[in-house]
Amino acid sequence: MSRSRKQTLEEAMERIEKAKESRKGSRSVRERNVTLSHGSGGKATHDLIEGIFAPAFANPVLDLMGDAAVFAPNGTGERIAFTADSFVVTPLFFPGGDIGTLAVHGTVNDLTVSGATPSHLSVSVILEEGFPIETLRRIVDSMTEAAAAASVAIVTGDTKVVERGKADGLYVNTAGVGAMRPDAAVSPAGAEPGDRILVSGPLGDHGIAILMAREELAIESDIASDTAPLHELAGALFDALREDVHCLRDATRGGLAAALNEFAAASGVGIAIEEEAVPVRRDVRGACEILGIDPLQIANEGKLVAVVAEGRAREALEAMRAAPHGGEAAIVGEVLAEPAEMVFVRTAVGGKRVLDMLVGDALPRIC
Amino acid sequence: MSRSRKQTLEEAMERIEKAKESRKGSRSVRERNVTLSHGSGGKATHDLIEGIFAPAFANPVLDLMGDAAVFAPNGTGERIAFTADSFVVTPLFFPGGDIGTLAVHGTVNDLTVSGATPSHLSVSVILEEGFPIETLRRIVDSMTEAAAAASVAIVTGDTKVVERGKADGLYVNTAGVGAMRPDAAVSPAGAEPGDRILVSGPLGDHGIAILMAREELAIESDIASDTAPLHELAGALFDALREDVHCLRDATRGGLAAALNEFAAASGVGIAIEEEAVPVRRDVRGACEILGIDPLQIANEGKLVAVVAEGRAREALEAMRAAPHGGEAAIVGEVLAEPAEMVFVRTAVGGKRVLDMLVGDALPRIC
Repeated sequence: MSRSRKQTLEEAMERIEKAKESRKGSRSVRERNVTLSHGSGGKATHDLIEGIFAPAFANPVLDLMGDAAVFAPNGTGERIAFTADSFVVTPLFFPGGDIGTLAVHGTVNDLTVSGATPSHLSVSVILEEGFPIETLRRIVDSMTEAAAAASVAIVTGDTKVVERGKADGLYVNTAGVGAMRPDAAVSPAGAEPGDRILVSGPLGDHGIAILMAREELAIESDIASDTAPLHELAGALFDALREDVHCLRDATRGGLAAALNEFAAASGVGIAIEEEAVPVRRDVRGACEILGIDPLQIANEGKLVAVVAEGRAREALEAMRAAPHGGEAAIVGEVLAEPAEMVFVRTAVGGKRVLDMLVGDALPRIC
Repeated sequence: MSRSRKQTLEEAMERIEKAKESRKGSRSVRERNVTLSHGSGGKATHDLIEGIFAPAFANPVLDLMGDAAVFAPNGTGERIAFTADSFVVTPLFFPGGDIGTLAVHGTVNDLTVSGATPSHLSVSVILEEGFPIETLRRIVDSMTEAAAAASVAIVTGDTKVVERGKADGLYVNTAGVGAMRPDAAVSPAGAEPGDRILVSGPLGDHGIAILMAREELAIESDIASDTAPLHELAGALFDALREDVHCLRDATRGGLAAALNEFAAASGVGIAIEEEAVPVRRDVRGACEILGIDPLQIANEGKLVAVVAEGRAREALEAMRAAPHGGEAAIVGEVLAEPAEMVFVRTAVGGKRVLDMLVGDALPRIC
């Protein structure tokens, strides 16, 4: 490593450490009012959760930033994973899916990456008075199809209606449960130096598809959301590697950057990504350049990020490539002993840049 | 029974049968747009669920109108109950509680009346941009206290933010799970002729408290919401009667009327209530008279309705009265072989009136 690059890296580390310290000093939320950034899935969301929800709800199972909580309902027996998510995506329909598919896939994937086999979902809707019944029917049909494709049953739910102007059409909440696989041992804290990082396919499709669907940009494109159920893909990976899958996440809000930063922080390790190795579609890359956003920081809805044991990366890649939605999987980086709690990208031209989580949100209401 | 009263009853039965047949003919929703009635928990909600959600999601465990779904996550092992509810109550704070206490109690009670021991909850919030952080903190504190009092852990959740004007401050969704008690065998279809009906205390407090808090009425009152966790009360009842508790429900949206009509329909029985025996606070009754609404049709958030085996009613009453939130429990009626699928009230002056579910909602956004 050249002296100049090393300095840049050291400076960056120092900056991050300082920022972290200052955040630790007051884990409270400084804002007086909720901002859109608090829903971004990035640092502002972390701060809201760490400052308000986590200290209040504190308990050993709590996993507000993770994908699902894992516990035995009766204290000693079989363990299940349990998760819940609200969906406020706008527009409700977009290339590749709609709020219904997204809601089912989101919960299926959160259970899946926790090492569970998703089985039962709830669907709760908050409807705005005047919302077209026909549109509701279409969304319910999407949920039905998505649930069937993911082999889950929708078993309970709730319907509330608020007055015209008091909501934005339709919000959906899906919660879900699934029995834990006995052979899965994943945790954000499971990454070890030497481990390899894999992604299951091109990044950034969902975020850019939503942005295009909003018609705020005068760009023609065929980009569709990647929203997909990842239970078979994750299942194939667990079948092949079992306990050698160390961390697993679906890279939703905050993208690959958020997932890797969380692994790095929880595991106390560094993570290096080879920029050239990360699959990003040409038109997604183009849109990101025009918008000045990083495809590694925007939401996906059908992409796994896996950290696997050093010697098993090739097998993991083969298992993913042979499974549904994994055909374009790639090995994209590695876990380092240091710099701890830091993620950086090695660029094609031999440079290094820090890959941090966004504070706010490049794209609000993405899911 | 005098001839004239019998005729009235027969006429009412005929009317109900006709209405039911016409509903069966087309279980579809006739409206083109969602109305507030679709969120009432009464007939319009039933129609929306039966017309759209139930046929789409159809599966053996589905329990969209019930309190919770009951199943074994891995197909064969221990059974759990699983439920989810959204809360859109307005105002957010009211005498006796706030949206946070309501959300925790609602889910705890849905699990409890299904025969489960509530253990783990999720909390998902949809926040409107600009919502005061301090108000959020108060509501989170309420949830924390309510969870502790109900012996449940909040283990997962989600935070979304929508733009100013796109929501009404704060909506909360709570989902929950709990292990099934092995000795509980409750079902809306479990009522048998001869069974006795009990309620755990005065009805209508929550609905009237919310209405008062909206300051739409110029009535002074001390009525507070009855919102409360009913796990100990239900636990005491199960401990005392075990399988002899046939049906159990918390009488939320739609009140006692909705709960009893569902029991009557599911069990194929008639239900008769003695009006004089139903506890209703004097000021709640007064407010209902002014408003022209029936205290048996409005929401409670801390009241059990139990159907128990004929010979065990006295024990059930004693168990409830000795338990938290059950001090004013009362035996209020009985199950009849016929008229099937019908609920009526025997009035103090010797009359009879049909107690049907409301089509719409006397009080929108009550929970």
